Formats: sequence, C-alpha cells, structure tokens
Amino acid sequence: MSKVITPRSEDYSKWYNDIVIQAGLAEHSDVRGCMVIKPYGFSIWENMRNALDEMFKATGHVNASFPLFIPKSFLSKEAAHVEGFAKECAVVTHYRLKNDPEGNGIIVDPEARLEEELIVRPTSETIIWNTYKRWVQSYRDLPLLINQWANVVRWEMRTRLFLRTAEFHWQEGHTAHETKEEAVDETLKMLDVYANFMENWIAVSVIKGVKSVNERFAGADDTYTCEALMQDGKALQMGTSHFLGQNFPKAFDVKFLGRDGTEQYAWATSWGVSTRLMGALVMAHSDDEGLVLPPKLAPIHVVIVPIINKNNEERKAEVDAFYQQLKNDLGKDIVVKYDEDDTKRPGFKFAEWELKGVPVRIAIGPKDLDNGTIEIARRDTREKMSIPAQNAAEYIKNLLDDIQENLYNKSRQFRELHITKADNFEAFKNILETKGGFVAAHWDGTTETEVRIKELTKATIRCIPLNNAREEGVCIFSGKPSKQRVLFARAY
Amino acid sequence: MSKVITPRSEDYSKWYNDIVIQAGLAEHSDVRGCMVIKPYGFSIWENMRNALDEMFKATGHVNASFPLFIPKSFLSKEAAHVEGFAKECAVVTHYRLKNDPEGNGIIVDPEARLEEELIVRPTSETIIWNTYKRWVQSYRDLPLLINQWANVVRWEMRTRLFLRTAEFHWQEGHTAHETKEEAVDETLKMLDVYANFMENWIAVSVIKGVKSVNERFAGADDTYTCEALMQDGKALQMGTSHFLGQNFPKAFDVKFLGRDGTEQYAWATSWGVSTRLMGALVMAHSDDEGLVLPPKLAPIHVVIVPIINKNNEERKAEVDAFYQQLKNDLGKDIVVKYDEDDTKRPGFKFAEWELKGVPVRIAIGPKDLDNGTIEIARRDTREKMSIPAQNAAEYIKNLLDDIQENLYNKSRQFRELHITKADNFEAFKNILETKGGFVAAHWDGTTETEVRIKELTKATIRCIPLNNAREEGVCIFSGKPSKQRVLFARAY
Repeated sequence: MSKVITPRSEDYSKWYNDIVIQAGLAEHSDVRGCMVIKPYGFSIWENMRNALDEMFKATGHVNASFPLFIPKSFLSKEAAHVEGFAKECAVVTHYRLKNDPEGNGIIVDPEARLEEELIVRPTSETIIWNTYKRWVQSYRDLPLLINQWANVVRWEMRTRLFLRTAEFHWQEGHTAHETKEEAVDETLKMLDVYANFMENWIAVSVIKGVKSVNERFAGADDTYTCEALMQDGKALQMGTSHFLGQNFPKAFDVKFLGRDGTEQYAWATSWGVSTRLMGALVMAHSDDEGLVLPPKLAPIHVVIVPIINKNNEERKAEVDAFYQQLKNDLGKDIVVKYDEDDTKRPGFKFAEWELKGVPVRIAIGPKDLDNGTIEIARRDTREKMSIPAQNAAEYIKNLLDDIQENLYNKSRQFRELHITKADNFEAFKNILETKGGFVAAHWDGTTETEVRIKELTKATIRCIPLNNAREEGVCIFSGKPSKQRVLFARAY
Repeated sequence: MSKVITPRSEDYSKWYNDIVIQAGLAEHSDVRGCMVIKPYGFSIWENMRNALDEMFKATGHVNASFPLFIPKSFLSKEAAHVEGFAKECAVVTHYRLKNDPEGNGIIVDPEARLEEELIVRPTSETIIWNTYKRWVQSYRDLPLLINQWANVVRWEMRTRLFLRTAEFHWQEGHTAHETKEEAVDETLKMLDVYANFMENWIAVSVIKGVKSVNERFAGADDTYTCEALMQDGKALQMGTSHFLGQNFPKAFDVKFLGRDGTEQYAWATSWGVSTRLMGALVMAHSDDEGLVLPPKLAPIHVVIVPIINKNNEERKAEVDAFYQQLKNDLGKDIVVKYDEDDTKRPGFKFAEWELKGVPVRIAIGPKDLDNGTIEIARRDTREKMSIPAQNAAEYIKNLLDDIQENLYNKSRQFRELHITKADNFEAFKNILETKGGFVAAHWDGTTETEVRIKELTKATIRCIPLNNAREEGVCIFSGKPSKQRVLFARAY
C-alpha cells in the first residue's frame, strides 16, 4: 500500500504523527497551533464525549454554556490563577475591521479598540464563578453541578496534534458546594468517573493520585490526576480533578446564607478532560500497521471485505446476504461496514482498515462460501481464524468484548512492569535513560528538590498515588527523610 | 407567586425577555453581548442539537472540527464575503499577557504582537475551503458532506438573548460537490431538513423561499431560507441554506480531476441554524404564564405534584407508587419529574412548572386517591381534566402527541391568517402598521426599490416562496411590471 508508517522503533514521535495523519484523525491547519479534527477522528471524539456526558449526567450533573471571552481583569482576581494562566493567551483587542484607506485590503480599525481586552478562555473558572455569584444566595441553591463542553485556547509554542494544541476541545465541570467535605467528595468522585472511563472505554490503565504543590492547577488547594504510561515509557496526564477550596468563591465573592443563618463562602471544584485523550488512545494501543481502537470507542466495529471476482454477481449476492444478516443480528450498537468498492484490491483494503484500527475484519471468498465459513481477523493481535458463518454474530460479540479486555490487560501489564523502585539518584537516572516508565522514589517533599530533579533529568513528579504505602526512607536527591515514595516520570 | 411576567399586550419585547430569564433559559453575562445559557435552556438546545444531528447523519453528513481563528487575509479572498463579514469581528492581535512593570496588574505584552491578526470566526467558509484544498484532488474525493457544531462571534451592537448575541452556538454544514446540479440539490435538501425540524419538532410553521439579491449571504449565488412569524406579527429568519456556486472553490483554488480528465472547480453549499432557534421557540408558543414547550423538545414532559398533607405518609406513599408505576409505563423517552418538595405550596409549584413550559402536569390529592383518578393539566391550552389513574400512561402518550400537533396547527393557522395581499403602497404600509405579518406584494425586482421600501417602512423582503404562483402585476412602489408577489415583513 501507498501509506507508510514510520516504525515505532525508528522514531516514536514520527510514528505517532503518521498514524494521526494517515488514519484520518486530524491534521495541522494553516492557523498556527490549531488543528483540524477530521471526520473519522471526530467520530471517535464524539463517542468519547457521549460516553462521558452520560456518566456526568448519571452523577447528577447538567450542561450549560458560558462565554468564550474573559475580561482581562477577571484573570487577576485569583492570585495563583493569574500567575498560571495570564501568560500565553489569545488577546482580543479590537472589534472591527475596515477597508484600508490606502488600498491595502482590510485592516484593523484603530478606532475600534476595546476599553478592556478580552482573553479567549484558557479555562473558565473566573467567568463561571463571576456568574455563580448571581446564582448562589442560600444553601438551598447548592450544590451547583454544572459541566460545559467547550473549546479553549492556550498559546502553546510547540504543538503536537491532540497532545498539545493552541485550541483544543474539552469539558470542564465547575461545581459549588455547601461544605468542604462535599466538595472534596465531588473532586474524588469525578476522578473515579475519569478513571472508569479511561480504563473501561479507552482501555488504558491509569494511576490515580494527587499532584505535588508544584504541579497543582493554578488556583487549586489540591489537584488529583489520572496518569498513564505510553508505549515509549513516557507518562501522560489524562485528566485532572481539582479541589479549589474557597479560592474562587472568595475572589468572586460567592457567599450564601447557611443553614445556621451565617453568611459563608461556597466550596469549589473543577475537573476536565480534553481532546488530549485522543492522543492517549492513539499512543497506548497502536502498532506499526496503524491505529488500534478499543471496540467501545470505535466508529466502525466490523468491516466485511468480499474477495469475489467482480463479475461474479451470484457469489457477490451471497456475500451481500451474509452482510445483511450479520447487520441485523448484531443490532444497531455494533456498526458494520461493508467495503464493496471494486476499484481496490482486497490487500489494499485490509491495510486501509488496519490503519484505521477497525477491531474486526471479515473476509469472504468463494471457498468460504462453499464451506459456509468466514475468515475473521482481530486487529489487536492480528490473529486470523476461520469460523462457521452461521455463528458469526455471537462470535463477534464475544470477540469485541475480548478485544476490549485484552487491550486493557496489555495496558495494565505494561504499566505494572514499568513502575521501578530507585533508591539513589544514579539508579533513578539510569532507569529513566534505559527502561523509562514510572520511577518510585523517596522525595523530601520540597519544591526545591522537585525542580532540581526536573532540571537534571527532565522527570517530574507525576503523582503521589492515592492510598500510597507508607514507608520510611531518604530522598534520592537531598538525602533528607521521607515517609513515602512518589512516582516520577518523563511526561508528555 | 413571586415571579411576574410582563403581559405580551403590554410590552412584547419585555415579555420575551422575562420568559427567557425567569424560565431559567439564559441571561446576559458580564462580557458584552455574550450570554450564559443556563442548564434548563441548554437542555432544550441539546434536544434540538441531538434531533438535528441525527437528521444530518441520516442524510449522509459527518461532523468535524475546524479552527476557531481565521487569518485576516483569508477573509479577503472572496470578494463578496469580505464585504459582508469583515466588519464587526473580534480581532486577536496579541498572544501574551505580562505583569505590568509599573505594578498595575497585568497588561498585554506589546512584544507579543501577531504578524497577522486572527479573526474569531464569524462563519467558517474561508478556513474550511482553505482546508478542502488539501482534501479534494479527484472526483473520487467528492462529495464532502461535512458539518460542524461550533461557537461563532459577530460583534453585534444591539443584542437580545438568543436572537442576536455576539457569541452564539450553531451548526454550519459545508459541502463540496462534483456538479452544480448536485450542489443545488444538496442546498434544497438541507432546506427541507430544516423545515421538517422546525415544523415537526419546534412546531413552528415556516415558509420556504429564496432570498432577494440584497438579502443573500455574502458569497452565495442563492440563499434559501425558512421564514416564520412570531406572535407580534414580525418575521424571524429561522435558518438558511446557501448555494455558493464556485465562489469559494475559486477563491481557495479547490480543483479536482473530473471524470472526463479535465480539471474543474468544486461546487459548494453551506447551511446553518443557531441558538436563535431557541428565541423562535420561546416567541412562537409562550403565553403570559411563561414558556410553552413542544413535547418533542421538552427536557421534562410530565410533572407530578402531590397535594398531600406532609405528615400523611400513608397517602404520600400511594402517590409515590403511582409515580413509580407511571415512570415505568411511559418508558425512558418520556421524562417524568416528581416534585415532592414539601417546602413549597402546590399553587407555587403549578406556577413554576407552567413558567418552565412542562407540557403535562398531574396533581393528585386525597380525593383523587379515593376515586382512583388523577387531575391532568395540559400546558398549551391550560385545560384540566380528571381521568382514571390506571389509564394515565396511555392517556399521556396521546396527550403529548396532541399537544405537539396542536402547537403546530396554531402556528400554521396564525401564519395563514397573516399573509395579506397589498396592491398599493398605502395599503402595504397600513397592513404593516395594523395587522403585521407577511405582506404579499408585487415588486419590480430591483435592489433600489427594495432598499427604498425598507427605509420607508422597515419592512424587508423575507423571501420569494418556492413554487410561488406567477401573477402579472405592477410593483407597489415603482409601478413597474412584476411577474410575482414576494413576501415582505418587518423582521427580527
């Protein structure tokens, strides 16, 4: 086939990019840092979105929509937040264009300057808490459990499709609560929702943990995270859930009359996952033939390729009949694609559908029809088997479950094999250079040490796992005492 | 109840705003011209979006995502388009903020000026056709049938919730075709999809027609429209479908190798509906008590209000049982809300649910329980009836269909009664001032006359209906000959 994917072993980064482009998931646009999500890629994102949205609603959340723009002054209201987000932003300064009086096309009308600049939202805490101020008066107005599906912009200098783009799509949940305890529960509940989605839909094993102070969201009291490992041994932060304390409620003056008659500030959380999950999906399972999709997120589950001479209408009709029967038997939740395009050779089609990661491929030739069999190939292991045609639907249903499970198990095994303990800095560096993955090491708890380790090794603290085992030890860098190991890794 | 809606008869515009605010649909944000769509309003929009998305997919379209930003130079590439859209836009000129060295908070970093300004998309023809250039080489790549759900920004000076806001949500379909005929067919097909949705979901009767040259989309060869009448006799453009000819393909050099081996430009369409439909929904059906929702778009179909003394647990349990039974019988597509909040009086609840437009309300008191009956109130006519509790599910299913149909019929009747012929300019003006609605009048076909009539009467040509009757006549304004009547109206 014409499309060639750079092998992982040769250039992992190019391999990733080749798959994203050649499987038709996304491409760079002519607008710096902004991608075009192509129809096939978007249909996978739609499946992610629908599954997550259902989970959010099942946990009592509702959707709403807040403005794309944030007045510059809003960013300054929360001290930590402004440090984190008032940096690389898209800034709207004018609201009109006009014809250049000197005839050089259209120009920005200098008279249409905004009194206050507007920032294209990099995240929406400020505009949302500014709104909640109007919505929260009494404890009866709480909790607010609101989510928004939106596009956000962060002016990244080095971009990579899905993993880091200037504009990206995400959901951001923003909740307001009566008590601290309820807000903490919400933060952890949504972390569990994320982990459940990542493991049971994307089929990627994740470690749930809490971030170090240095890696916290700007404006959070605690940031919880789901961290996964990609095939190159680098970590990817898949999603975060923040306990925001009363920081934004205080900055935006969101007070309510409590049950005890006193005025109180609300408690806040926010949580988000983005199109970055598409990058995780690609990197976690794909191989040198292309994308490998977990069945629960695949836009097409089964492709049927007839291997029949194009003039043999009678035999073709038999395959048509098989397709119709299978489609009926599988029901509407399993999407079957019938690739009857006779301008392409079967081998070409096989490669195309492998590239696109369709979990199950069925080939049917004259011999199969004679024998009442079909040839089934599973994308994850690339195994082929011949089975009786009449058992196809039942077999495929089980096979899809099996593929989903197999992908997850592979991911979990890989992750388990790539948590390595290091008890001194030499060993630590050695693991990062050779094996990669997470390194479980003692750390003295200071930002200073963390930053220094990052400077020297490019490894960051990915998280302190929830329910981490207590263990006396000494920091691999400073030698100071430590009560637990934390997980370091080089990360995307 | 505390919430009061200004009667339509007193101030139509205020009535509309009161309903949008008090039913919890949307509100103004602190960002000029940008609204917040509140959860209840957003759930109605989600229902619209899901229904439309299903229709788009059923007609062969797929979704994708294109950049939020458009380089300024792209707007200039299509001559008519730049005149229409390069005006009131949000212009991004910088990509960084920094701390003011003089200590006055954060400022725009003057060193981070973009080489070329970016416009927040007011519509996406330019960026999308710039992308299609890479996707279209051969007739085999056609048609492209792509839709995008997106937010867009047009810097409107006078805004009204849903009807005219700086940022709004919409879908924009952008298709590329091999032949002119196919593109025209697509344009009309999508007009039919829109009309079907508007009539059978929103329950608003529309007139399908083509726009005059003056009212065309900037860059279109023909603009088709669905026009509806609101209760105040003003017209509302509900959605448009554009045949773009080869204008954008030529401007962005989208050529393909045709079946005959020659290089040809593609043919283009675009079509869109927006959150403006929410405004139409509110204005078309609501009354002085609040919102009236067509069942097919209602987030809640049935509300049950128990009228039981809060200490009478036994009787309350009987109502609980009825609710559970009804919920089961109605199935998951009909949403039943059980309002058992005992801090509010039944009368207050009735008013609240009327305000929110829930199609069917059920009240159950001790007498009903004794008699095995329930009291049902339909929101559209505000009629009440007592029916046997055991027939509830069947009765409600029929009632919801009946309400949907009744709303549409009322809208159709109103529209039919408000198309009035005028044969001279005095009569024309008189109808506009007194009766309102559409005025069917002869027009000489010139933009000059159209513009003059608009200046004098604020009425515009809403459309030339499809399959319009041919009729010899003279223009009401110029006296020049005319071959057909066109529909004028004052419009939103």
